[in-house]
Amino acid sequence: MTRQKKIFLEESEMPKQWYNLAPDLPTPMNPPLGPGGVIVTPEMLAPVFPMNLIEQEVSQERWIDIPEPIREMLVQWRPSPLIRAYELEEALGTPAKIYYKNEGVSPAGSHKPNTAVAQAWYNKEFGIKKLTTETGAGQWGSALSYACAQVGGIECKVYMVRVSFDQKPFRKMMMETWGGQCVASPSTETQAGRDILAQFPDTPGSLGIAISEAVEAAVSDPTGETRYSLGSVLNHVMLHQTVIGQEAKKQLKKVGIDKPDIVIGCCGGGSNFAGISFPFMYDKINGADIQIIGVEPTSCPTLTKAPFVYDHGDVAKMTPLLAMNSLGHNFVPAPIHAGGLRYHGMAPLVSAALRDGLMEATSVHQSECFEAGLLFAKTEGIIPAPETTHAIAQTIREAKKAKEEGKEKVILFNFSGHGLMDLVGYNKYINGELKDYAYPESEIAENLRKIEGYPMPK
Amino acid sequence: MTRQKKIFLEESEMPKQWYNLAPDLPTPMNPPLGPGGVIVTPEMLAPVFPMNLIEQEVSQERWIDIPEPIREMLVQWRPSPLIRAYELEEALGTPAKIYYKNEGVSPAGSHKPNTAVAQAWYNKEFGIKKLTTETGAGQWGSALSYACAQVGGIECKVYMVRVSFDQKPFRKMMMETWGGQCVASPSTETQAGRDILAQFPDTPGSLGIAISEAVEAAVSDPTGETRYSLGSVLNHVMLHQTVIGQEAKKQLKKVGIDKPDIVIGCCGGGSNFAGISFPFMYDKINGADIQIIGVEPTSCPTLTKAPFVYDHGDVAKMTPLLAMNSLGHNFVPAPIHAGGLRYHGMAPLVSAALRDGLMEATSVHQSECFEAGLLFAKTEGIIPAPETTHAIAQTIREAKKAKEEGKEKVILFNFSGHGLMDLVGYNKYINGELKDYAYPESEIAENLRKIEGYPMPK
Repeated sequence: MTRQKKIFLEESEMPKQWYNLAPDLPTPMNPPLGPGGVIVTPEMLAPVFPMNLIEQEVSQERWIDIPEPIREMLVQWRPSPLIRAYELEEALGTPAKIYYKNEGVSPAGSHKPNTAVAQAWYNKEFGIKKLTTETGAGQWGSALSYACAQVGGIECKVYMVRVSFDQKPFRKMMMETWGGQCVASPSTETQAGRDILAQFPDTPGSLGIAISEAVEAAVSDPTGETRYSLGSVLNHVMLHQTVIGQEAKKQLKKVGIDKPDIVIGCCGGGSNFAGISFPFMYDKINGADIQIIGVEPTSCPTLTKAPFVYDHGDVAKMTPLLAMNSLGHNFVPAPIHAGGLRYHGMAPLVSAALRDGLMEATSVHQSECFEAGLLFAKTEGIIPAPETTHAIAQTIREAKKAKEEGKEKVILFNFSGHGLMDLVGYNKYINGELKDYAYPESEIAENLRKIEGYPMPK
Repeated sequence: MTRQKKIFLEESEMPKQWYNLAPDLPTPMNPPLGPGGVIVTPEMLAPVFPMNLIEQEVSQERWIDIPEPIREMLVQWRPSPLIRAYELEEALGTPAKIYYKNEGVSPAGSHKPNTAVAQAWYNKEFGIKKLTTETGAGQWGSALSYACAQVGGIECKVYMVRVSFDQKPFRKMMMETWGGQCVASPSTETQAGRDILAQFPDTPGSLGIAISEAVEAAVSDPTGETRYSLGSVLNHVMLHQTVIGQEAKKQLKKVGIDKPDIVIGCCGGGSNFAGISFPFMYDKINGADIQIIGVEPTSCPTLTKAPFVYDHGDVAKMTPLLAMNSLGHNFVPAPIHAGGLRYHGMAPLVSAALRDGLMEATSVHQSECFEAGLLFAKTEGIIPAPETTHAIAQTIREAKKAKEEGKEKVILFNFSGHGLMDLVGYNKYINGELKDYAYPESEIAENLRKIEGYPMPK
C-alpha cells in the first residue's frame, strides 16, 4: 500500500489562533445598523451576547488566540482528517486530485461544534448560566447542547422549528442526550410564540419565529444570566471556523501540495464555507492563484442572484441591519432537504468577500446534489449531509472539467457533515420523488421592495 | 496542551495479518456437527459460503495475510483512533487511565465493516454475484451494503426483522443509499417466509426467521452465484475483527504502555469483543497478566448463566450444531435496546476462551448501561450505541474499583459503535420509561430440554 488515503495532524499541530478576514478585506466592512440607521455599538449588543464575544465580533485583529481550554475541547475530534478521494477520482476518471476535509467526525456530526464549544466557553467565562438558540434541521441545536455539556455548568435551551421538531424526533433526542432542552417553536413560553399561536394555531413555525423566541428568552431573563447564541452568519462564528482551512493548508503541505487550485464549500449562512476558505483567501490576497467557489441551492440563490444590501437577519426584524447579500428577510424557502442552506441572507464577511472578488459563487439543483451524494457514498463510503452534497456536486463538475481539459488540478472541498440523521432526501431521490425548485428573480425583486428606503452599504 | 487525547497510527502501521486464536487455545476447538452428529466438512458448507472463507473458518494457521485490496478498503477509516478518556476519568475522579478504541468512525458507524469488506471481497474473488444476509437492528445490514458498494459488482440483499424494519426506517434508507436492497422479514420471497406468513400473518418477525430466509435465498439460487453472509459468531468473522486489538496494542505502546491491566468488550455474537481481546489473549497465553472481561445484558446471560453445549445457531435449526454457550435456540429475548446483544448463543471461539479461563464474563442491566452512556456522551462527547454502553458500564465499575483501591490501572475498552441511529433508548431512559429484565434461570433449564440428547462438546 503506497498511497495514503488520510492525512492527519498531531494535536500539537492544531492552530493556536483563529484567522479574522475582516482587516484583510480590500474594502472595509460596513457596520451593522440599528433603528434610524445608527451604527450599532458593542454596548447595544450586550443584552444579547457576552462582551468577550462582541469584542471578537467587531475585532480588526488578524489573528486571535484560541484559549487553551477551548483547544482542549476541540481535540476531542480535531485536527480533523484531510482525505484523498481516490475512489471518487477513479469513478470519475479524472486527472484531478480531490481532497476533502472531514468535519463529520465531530460528536455532533458537522463543523458546528467548532464554534459551539468556543461560544459556550466564552459565555461561561462571562458568568452566563444559560444559552438560548434556535435550530431548523437540528444540526446547530445538537452542537450547542453538546458544547454546553462539555463546558459544564451552563444550560442550553433550543427553540426548534415545529415542522422539523415533529419530523425529526431524533434530533431532539440527541440534544436531550447531551442535557439540552428542546421545545417546538412557536412555543407558549415566550410572548412572540404566544402571539403567533394566537393568530395561527396550526403554524409549522419558521426559523424567523424561532430566532425571535430565542432572543426574547435571552434578553427577558430578569437575572441577566442568559444570552443568545447563533450558529452562523456573524463574524465571530466565521472566525471560530477558520481552524478548518488552516489545518487543511498544513495537511496539503504534508503531501507536498503548496496550494490547492480550487477550494469549494457549500453556503447557507456561510460558516463552513468561511471555515475552509478564509485562510486561503488570506493567501489569495497575498498573491496566490486560488479559485474559491461558494455553492448554494438554486432554490435559495443568495450569492448568485441576490444583491448586496442592508437587511435584517430575521423575519421579525429583531436583529440589526446587516450588510449582506439578501433575498429579502421575508423570503420563504422551498422545502429542499438541505435545511442548513435555506437562509435568506449570507454572512456579511462572505458577502463582502464576494463583492471584493475574493471568491465566486454558483448554484446547484438538489437532484444533482443527491446524485453526487450517492456517488460519494458508494465510492468514498461516507454518506454526506444534504448540505454537503452541494460542495460535492460542484467538485464533481470541476473534476469533469479538469478531465476535459486534461489538467491535474488539486481540488479541496469541505465535507461539512455526515448525513446519518438526514436520510429522507436520499430515500426520495432513489424513489424518484424529489423535486427541484428555482427561485424566480421576480420574487426577489418583490421581496426587496420591503427594504426600499433602507441605507445602502458601500 | 501537553496531554494527548487521540493516538493515531499511520496507514502503513495497520496490521498486515489477522490473528487466529484457534491454534492457541489450550483445549482444541470442537468441530461443528451436522445431522446425525457427523462432523461438518468444508464441502458441506460450500452451498452457503465461498470456499476461500470456509478455509478461513476451519484454519489452524495463527496468522493469515490480509489481501492488499482489503487493506485499501480498510484504510477508508482505519487505523481507528485510540482515545484517552480524560474527561470521563475526571468525572469519575479515578486514578485509572481509560482508553477506548473508536470503531464508530467507520462509514456504517460500528466495527461491522471490518468483516463486511473482507467477506464481500472474498465472495467476489470466488465469482459470487450476490450476497444475502439478515439484520436485526440494522447495523450489520448497513455494513454489508456499504461493503458491497465498495467492492463493486456484487448485489446485497438484506432480510430485516419486520418489527425493526417498521420502527427503524432510517436503517433501510442507509442500506439503500449504498445500493443494498432491504425487505421486511418474513417476506413473500422465500418458502420459509411464505410459510410463516400463512400461519402468522401479523408476526413481527425474528432473527431466526430472517436467517432462514437469507440462507434459503442463497442456496436456492439456480445460478449458484449467491452466497450467505453472517456478521458475527463464526470463526472467520472473529478473525477479521482482530485488526482492532492489534492496532490498540501498537497505539498503547506509542504512549509507553506495555500492556493494559484490563480489556473490556460487550458481547452479543462475540465479534467486537473478539476483535479487541483476542490479540491480548495471545499475550495472556504467552504469560502476560491481563484481565479480559466480556460484558453482556442481564436479560441475555449467555456467558454468565448458560452452559457450554452443542446447539443450533438459529431458531429454525438450519445451521449445524456449534459448540458454544447457549441459552437454547428457542430463547426469546426481552425487548432491550441493545439489539445486537440479544442472541441466544455466543461465538464458539469466545465460548472456548471462557471455558479455558482466558477471559471472564459479567452482566449489566440496561438502565445502568444507559446511565453510563449518558455520562460518556456528556464527558467524552460521542453518543455510544446501546450495545457499546455495556462495555462503558463495566469500565466505569472497574474505574471506581481502581479508585477505591487507589490503583492506577490501565483500562482499555472497545467503543464498538456510535448511537446516532439508536437514540430511542436514551430518550426512554431520560423519561424514566426504561425497564430492566433478568432472564430467569428456570427458563434456561426449560430451553435446554430442547437440546437434550444432542452431543456434548469436550
